[in-house]
Amino acid sequence: MSQILVFNNEVAAAVEAIVDEAKPNGLFIITDTNVRREVLPSLAEQSPAVARACVIECEPGDEAKNLRTLSEIWSRLVAGGCSRSSLIINLGGGVVTDMGGFAAATFKRGVKFINIPTTLLAAVDASVGGKTGINFEGLKNEIGVFREAVAVIISTCFFGSLPREELLSGYAEMLKHGLLDSEEAVDMLLDFPIENCDEPKELLQLLKKSVAVKQRVVEADPHEHGLRKALNLGHTMAHAMEGLALKTGSHLAHGYAVARGLVADLVLSHMKHGFPSERLHSVAAFVKSRYGAPEFTCDDYDTLIQLMRHDKKNIDPETINFTLLAAPGDIRLDSTATPQEITAALDITRDLLGC
Amino acid sequence: MSQILVFNNEVAAAVEAIVDEAKPNGLFIITDTNVRREVLPSLAEQSPAVARACVIECEPGDEAKNLRTLSEIWSRLVAGGCSRSSLIINLGGGVVTDMGGFAAATFKRGVKFINIPTTLLAAVDASVGGKTGINFEGLKNEIGVFREAVAVIISTCFFGSLPREELLSGYAEMLKHGLLDSEEAVDMLLDFPIENCDEPKELLQLLKKSVAVKQRVVEADPHEHGLRKALNLGHTMAHAMEGLALKTGSHLAHGYAVARGLVADLVLSHMKHGFPSERLHSVAAFVKSRYGAPEFTCDDYDTLIQLMRHDKKNIDPETINFTLLAAPGDIRLDSTATPQEITAALDITRDLLGC
Repeated sequence: MSQILVFNNEVAAAVEAIVDEAKPNGLFIITDTNVRREVLPSLAEQSPAVARACVIECEPGDEAKNLRTLSEIWSRLVAGGCSRSSLIINLGGGVVTDMGGFAAATFKRGVKFINIPTTLLAAVDASVGGKTGINFEGLKNEIGVFREAVAVIISTCFFGSLPREELLSGYAEMLKHGLLDSEEAVDMLLDFPIENCDEPKELLQLLKKSVAVKQRVVEADPHEHGLRKALNLGHTMAHAMEGLALKTGSHLAHGYAVARGLVADLVLSHMKHGFPSERLHSVAAFVKSRYGAPEFTCDDYDTLIQLMRHDKKNIDPETINFTLLAAPGDIRLDSTATPQEITAALDITRDLLGC
Repeated sequence: MSQILVFNNEVAAAVEAIVDEAKPNGLFIITDTNVRREVLPSLAEQSPAVARACVIECEPGDEAKNLRTLSEIWSRLVAGGCSRSSLIINLGGGVVTDMGGFAAATFKRGVKFINIPTTLLAAVDASVGGKTGINFEGLKNEIGVFREAVAVIISTCFFGSLPREELLSGYAEMLKHGLLDSEEAVDMLLDFPIENCDEPKELLQLLKKSVAVKQRVVEADPHEHGLRKALNLGHTMAHAMEGLALKTGSHLAHGYAVARGLVADLVLSHMKHGFPSERLHSVAAFVKSRYGAPEFTCDDYDTLIQLMRHDKKNIDPETINFTLLAAPGDIRLDSTATPQEITAALDITRDLLGC
């Protein structure tokens, strides 16, 4: 069953239409403290369904995406009399849509849910494609299921108040989708004034194209046996950079790691599959100007490679898997690279990003 | 994807064949203390795969089927290095197959698992059909998912040591499947010497027919939107009797409640859909002789009806839903009955079962 994607800046109207159609026996909203304060009041004002709903509020941030919070959500669903014919709305960023989706997917063996992402990153990535879950014992998304929202309402109207870092974080995933799609898609993304966007309609159109790339991939391979690994482009490198930041206690937003991971993967793509040098340079210049230089040095290479060995998508820890490209849109799944090749790629990446 | 059902009393050989085929990267066995002591040693002696596997042991019994035990299982899977290409074997009764199945379905968003039921009840019911889960805040199976085992190995070789009560508990579910199937199936079950069975092969054949009934229903409606409700035959009544036993602190095995619930549902079936009186009497005589008289009196009717109103399969608490029959194999889903009709049915049931 494919999920319905609604691209509409009239969010309240879209919610009303879905609730009218679904006629749920009980409506629940899972959100976090910030979104409840910033977003919910105006949505409730415009949507009687939202105003009536039982609100379940979690602490914000990735630290709250754990078994304790999940258990509290389940308790609140029990207390609110949630049944199999109820509907749950996850309103928030990726933490809310991941954890709320998992709570819904497991309550009474499955209650229908819709996602309303309030960040660009959640809109383009977490809210679409059916990955739900929580962190467990320090491991990201270790516990979860694949379960798609019945609908995702994607709008740009919550992005106006997003900090620059959060906006760029989401944009890195859009860049990934563009690279998986075509030359034209990459051109459009490199030209778009994401930091000074006063045209929400244009951004919504760009977002629609971007989500469509993910949707096509997920429909072809919902459970990540093959093509879905394409979405891992840039991510083996990015996860290692995030792991390094965690070790050194420095702050690194996911999208910033992805942006730099994409450049490193394009370098590897150039080395192993002849990815065009000119395109590599245009993407690297964009990443350098927006996301700045990565913090790691050549002293960190061993740690980074060690972290890559433990990526949960590897089949065994001796082989490091990458999704690479021969050109934008020309995907090479299950590419591998030796530690020497990775070292060379990291060197070139640092040069390109001006370390 | 349909699950493979293996009916084979050579359990070790069946496990070896499945592991050989699956070539898992890591093998885990989830079991309970009793089964580990009684069953695992001989299985490990005959199966090198089982001998090598990482064993995760839980406390036995329904009280252990909770979030704390589940969380311990997840921890042990992390510690043992369980990956998406590992295989989990749930070896035990319904508590183990339900909870182990849920742990597997949610670890890294889904690890493959097989079920090896060691009780008749688990073989004929819990281990087949994809319902997994745990109890939560006193509510049975409140948290869970639908996820089928890749294979279920069904054998009768563990039943020799089962107490009479456990054997009869499972047999009540077989009786239910027989009633959903045909006159012939009911005849065979009423004639079979379940309490003095020295023919494990014959029991295995009977079990095969019984599980096939459930399998057909589940394949037609895996997520309980329609036909799967047929499996609820006897269960609205049974759950109410179990709820009453819980309130009064008396012991009532699930299968015993089901056996009496089946008689009560056949009484209702006779009243509402003309279920043949002769067949009602032959089933009631069998239940009376094997399971004895139910403990409730007419003073408990209000409590029982109140409990039926809260059955999680009801759409709203005002209407009490039943699965009834016009004859064996002639299923009437979504039948309803008034409190007056239920009272009359409970009276007749008590008469038939000799209270």
